[in-house]
Amino acid sequence: MEKPDGKYPIHDLLRNRWSPVAFSERLVSHEDLRALLEAARWAPSCYGDQPWVFIVATKDQPDVFDRLLRCLMDANIAWAQYAPVLMMTVARRHFTHNGQPNRYAWHDIGLAVGGMLVQATHLGLSVHQMAGFDPIKARETFAIPEDHEPVSVIAIGYHGDVGNLSEALQARETTPRSRHPLGKFVFSDTWGQVAPFIE
Amino acid sequence: MEKPDGKYPIHDLLRNRWSPVAFSERLVSHEDLRALLEAARWAPSCYGDQPWVFIVATKDQPDVFDRLLRCLMDANIAWAQYAPVLMMTVARRHFTHNGQPNRYAWHDIGLAVGGMLVQATHLGLSVHQMAGFDPIKARETFAIPEDHEPVSVIAIGYHGDVGNLSEALQARETTPRSRHPLGKFVFSDTWGQVAPFIE
Repeated sequence: MEKPDGKYPIHDLLRNRWSPVAFSERLVSHEDLRALLEAARWAPSCYGDQPWVFIVATKDQPDVFDRLLRCLMDANIAWAQYAPVLMMTVARRHFTHNGQPNRYAWHDIGLAVGGMLVQATHLGLSVHQMAGFDPIKARETFAIPEDHEPVSVIAIGYHGDVGNLSEALQARETTPRSRHPLGKFVFSDTWGQVAPFIE
Repeated sequence: MEKPDGKYPIHDLLRNRWSPVAFSERLVSHEDLRALLEAARWAPSCYGDQPWVFIVATKDQPDVFDRLLRCLMDANIAWAQYAPVLMMTVARRHFTHNGQPNRYAWHDIGLAVGGMLVQATHLGLSVHQMAGFDPIKARETFAIPEDHEPVSVIAIGYHGDVGNLSEALQARETTPRSRHPLGKFVFSDTWGQVAPFIE
């Protein structure tokens, strides 16, 4: 997989991260799972509320894994079934300290997963986040209470061979990563005015 | 500042991150600013939408800095005025590819900032995110269009001396970091059932 070009160098733990669809059958150790969740744990959050829950399913527990897998859309099941770990992220919708709605709950899930991504890359693991799942089925399957919302499902494992995958997925796996240029989204002074330090 | 304990070791770039309120006057180089934004740029996002905009104000541009500073709540102005860089994050509310609402816009801002945090720590910079600002004033001040929402304001700089700060802020600066234990938020099988790999 092509890496981001080096015009503005970034740390290898960020540069080497990408979201594959081909996972190896190799299991993730419990030690590494703990490190992934510990990385999420130390993320910052609004009011320090830590509005995140992770429901984790590993192939050690085939029944739990299958129940989580079945919450996904078919297009995701097609490849995510081969990952050794699936995690559902769940956001607490109200602040613990005052019961008010927490507009930052999803944002803070993103921060926590952002930390997990770095730890995963450091451990040689690949991560692929999905929005394509059925939140109602997820709530029923795992008895998620009303004041919490399922946010994403994350596949985690070692990058593997594309051999199990359809041609379309194989093609996706080799598509170069691309992003908007900085000048499109880094402004200063006023909206649309590119920041002066962007060359 | 006390660091997370080592029961489950995590990468130093995560372990060493925290959100100070004391910033040095030392400016952040343009090169480092570009690297921070490049780190955000390569974050994953739902449908690859990259729903993030950063409005950046540095002390090189005192008028812009002051306008962004004045969007903050007074309690944040008290310390953020000393940071050399402020950034407002802004989320695009609808997907570019189909115009549908993007539930993940704030989540993906969190992922992008999560990447920026790692790059900042790598560069010896400190970052402190704030929800305490006036979004209506922010929209007016920077002509943020209706289909975008201001999400957070981020202070960035080098950690500094607490001498400029009130006693209350000085006390806050030395409060040990703490987080919920993993057993509180890492479940498996069903809600509230602690995952078996958590010791």
